[in-house]
Amino acid sequence: MIRNISVQTVDVRTPGHLIDGTQAEYVRVPFAETSVYLLPAGVSPQQGTLLSDILPTGHEIGVRYGQVKAGDVVAVIGAGPVGLSVIATAGLYGPSKIIAVDLDANRMDKAKTLGATDAVISSDDDWKEQVMAMTDGRGVDVAIEAVGIPQTFAMCLDIVRPGGHVANVGVHGKPVELPLQDLWISNINISMGLVSTNTLDTLLKMVAQDKIVTDEFVSHTFKLEEIVEAYDVFSRAAETKAIKVMINAQA
Amino acid sequence: MIRNISVQTVDVRTPGHLIDGTQAEYVRVPFAETSVYLLPAGVSPQQGTLLSDILPTGHEIGVRYGQVKAGDVVAVIGAGPVGLSVIATAGLYGPSKIIAVDLDANRMDKAKTLGATDAVISSDDDWKEQVMAMTDGRGVDVAIEAVGIPQTFAMCLDIVRPGGHVANVGVHGKPVELPLQDLWISNINISMGLVSTNTLDTLLKMVAQDKIVTDEFVSHTFKLEEIVEAYDVFSRAAETKAIKVMINAQA
Amino acid sequence: MIRNISVQTVDVRTPGHLIDGTQAEYVRVPFAETSVYLLPAGVSPQQGTLLSDILPTGHEIGVRYGQVKAGDVVAVIGAGPVGLSVIATAGLYGPSKIIAVDLDANRMDKAKTLGATDAVISSDDDWKEQVMAMTDGRGVDVAIEAVGIPQTFAMCLDIVRPGGHVANVGVHGKPVELPLQDLWISNINISMGLVSTNTLDTLLKMVAQDKIVTDEFVSHTFKLEEIVEAYDVFSRAAETKAIKVMINAQA
Amino acid sequence: MIRNISVQTVDVRTPGHLIDGTQAEYVRVPFAETSVYLLPAGVSPQQGTLLSDILPTGHEIGVRYGQVKAGDVVAVIGAGPVGLSVIATAGLYGPSKIIAVDLDANRMDKAKTLGATDAVISSDDDWKEQVMAMTDGRGVDVAIEAVGIPQTFAMCLDIVRPGGHVANVGVHGKPVELPLQDLWISNINISMGLVSTNTLDTLLKMVAQDKIVTDEFVSHTFKLEEIVEAYDVFSRAAETKAIKVMINAQA
Repeated sequence: MIRNISVQTVDVRTPGHLIDGTQAEYVRVPFAETSVYLLPAGVSPQQGTLLSDILPTGHEIGVRYGQVKAGDVVAVIGAGPVGLSVIATAGLYGPSKIIAVDLDANRMDKAKTLGATDAVISSDDDWKEQVMAMTDGRGVDVAIEAVGIPQTFAMCLDIVRPGGHVANVGVHGKPVELPLQDLWISNINISMGLVSTNTLDTLLKMVAQDKIVTDEFVSHTFKLEEIVEAYDVFSRAAETKAIKVMINAQA
Repeated sequence: MIRNISVQTVDVRTPGHLIDGTQAEYVRVPFAETSVYLLPAGVSPQQGTLLSDILPTGHEIGVRYGQVKAGDVVAVIGAGPVGLSVIATAGLYGPSKIIAVDLDANRMDKAKTLGATDAVISSDDDWKEQVMAMTDGRGVDVAIEAVGIPQTFAMCLDIVRPGGHVANVGVHGKPVELPLQDLWISNINISMGLVSTNTLDTLLKMVAQDKIVTDEFVSHTFKLEEIVEAYDVFSRAAETKAIKVMINAQA
Repeated sequence: MIRNISVQTVDVRTPGHLIDGTQAEYVRVPFAETSVYLLPAGVSPQQGTLLSDILPTGHEIGVRYGQVKAGDVVAVIGAGPVGLSVIATAGLYGPSKIIAVDLDANRMDKAKTLGATDAVISSDDDWKEQVMAMTDGRGVDVAIEAVGIPQTFAMCLDIVRPGGHVANVGVHGKPVELPLQDLWISNINISMGLVSTNTLDTLLKMVAQDKIVTDEFVSHTFKLEEIVEAYDVFSRAAETKAIKVMINAQA
Repeated sequence: MIRNISVQTVDVRTPGHLIDGTQAEYVRVPFAETSVYLLPAGVSPQQGTLLSDILPTGHEIGVRYGQVKAGDVVAVIGAGPVGLSVIATAGLYGPSKIIAVDLDANRMDKAKTLGATDAVISSDDDWKEQVMAMTDGRGVDVAIEAVGIPQTFAMCLDIVRPGGHVANVGVHGKPVELPLQDLWISNINISMGLVSTNTLDTLLKMVAQDKIVTDEFVSHTFKLEEIVEAYDVFSRAAETKAIKVMINAQA
């Protein structure tokens, strides 16, 4: 089973998005030779799988588009797999704080293991005040949306400081409202996008040296013949506490 | 009469915005010594006035936030004073095309004098097709909003290419809709903001050398005692074809 | 016969440098499909030939490595083919002055046709004072070396302002001296390199629109059977006033 | 007595360089109000003293001018106070390796406490081979000179990869040789300069959070009346193992 997927920003017909995905015995990947990497010593096939999509997504669309830099306070709204990828890779840029914001206390623990310095439960009435207090009232330098609904996008706009960045990583199904009547004067920058994996080389080096923690991403591993059960577990993530579910054809 | 205004991004209580403006015989400008420039030879007081606000706004919030670079196709939605400022300063960055989009054919002529290479009348049914044809169907690299209403912001989103920039310069009074269900995958970047005039030094040099054309900005000049008439002319801009109205206390 | 050559920074065995060149009926270019461009309408084969090496060299190693930006004063030491390429492409970045410095008054005229705003004869005793006077005594923002000998490199260090850039484009045969005892405190930046042609897409667009002037580069054109004469003319450039010599196999 | 010194790049007559320094009861610092910072909670006066000069020098002239980025291999030639400052601040940018190179094994231990991942003794015959082996033979991405003599500058040129950066932090007394006959093709970038402390705000935050280790910098502390002894200890650093010597007027 071939697993490495060539994802190209310029072609929205990427496997698994607008055309069929790659759950097949053989896959033809156009221009695959432009995106194949050798796994270096110290990177397991399981880590390699995380590096094919989720870690570069958090890194490129969250951390780099959000322009995280030394000393920044970063808030990540949503601590699901993609939010955790943002948290796991943001530390490469020297932020002073990484604040995880989520409904789920369980995910907060994982977030802290991966590098979050602070956690805020988003169902708290004063969640915003808690975040603002961590920035001396200024607002965060970078707010990263990792859920994909209007409420969480609005939360980012609520807490970003004038001159800061909002990086959208979530996949949205509906329009959001942009209160330009308030924001036009605030010099914020809003980014969004699909991963291109052009930072994979850097991420491979950092994972090989344990500078990116990857332990927490795979909550469940199944054999190929258990794939139906795997999908079931993943579909009931709140109940099963699934983060990423791995199918290991060699097991 | 003192005219040079210190505008600071960090302080929204700038004169003329949330506190009273500067139409007075004397004005106290806090920290004014940090933003006073000597007019070099070759820059007239009238040009200096344009450099205190409108030209840096177009340059900083439109051209630089929009990251215009060599070879880019740039569309400017709105050819009023601010849009014309964008057009007049974009040429410093080597774009291959500067497309002015406006309802008013009269303003198009001014736009072309100032550096626009192409013009599209936005009331044409096929205005979008006209713009897209100028980019071989790809969309523009940078779309700059210089009006301040939801429709013109939406026009920018309609014509920007994947990976491109939307720079909002307009002052808005209402929220706009951001169709994130379509845009999340498009790797576009949206910016907005209030001018800080931190590029004034560069602009002074370029105006002194006639590399920025400023002739078209001041459509009417009045003496101080004609100020009421000046406001009247400016308030009926569509009819009077006013762009910027200058009060010259020395005249 | 006109041939497009793939030049790759990562492989110093580029044709014509450490291995044989491409004066043959057929050439095998490894990975050529990664660097072939369609000539757009408005770009002649002759212009295409200039775009395969000389114009991107001036643009990438001179202008971009030198970080020319709006308002800068740029000095180009040497107005041979590569120096002229720097001058022809620097205008895309909005410099306030482009000063050509050369021994040869003939080349100065060409430099001015291509975009130089000022010219200084380097055999003048006061050449340095002339350059400094054009910068109000501060020194140039960017000094670009386009000859390849120690004297011209030293000239760049002599005229660059604190905080400025020295971009070496010349191919050198000997070491140069770097007076670090004076320079360590001056915050200058020194770059050098071989072209990668990764800006060819931009340059093609600008040539197609006549925003880069290319008329002056080809001083002589020969048929394929006159190639020996062509080399002779090129080898006596001072006498023949040769800039670039073109072989046109179709002629 | 601890004094905050305003150092300005634009004025080489900075106290302690070309005019007398500040060992006096009172000091007049022109424009001092532009560079005074409040020490935040968690930063001691001793740490504040390190932040007035040495830490920003390593950070600005070494790490930032050297453009250290995520995944880079960085070599620091010289593990004296300034080299240690480079090492202590480079980690903010996510390098994969920080290699300390020095003659003195004692300093290597300090380097590792501050963040160096590897150490090479520069008197080893095969020091270069040791460094190259740590980069799979490619050369380091960034080589930082923190001594100030021709040999150590040459060492940087010897180990930097094509396309890499050499950042000079050392104060030199003699010219160095630049072998441009070899380097012109290598696309390396060379920087140098005097600190401006424009990153002090970021460094204060990072020290306040213990993300920059500062313990190792002050090897000796003296009272004001012991200042003569303090100078003596500092002048015999090899013997006394002095790194930085602190005078504490409050002790």
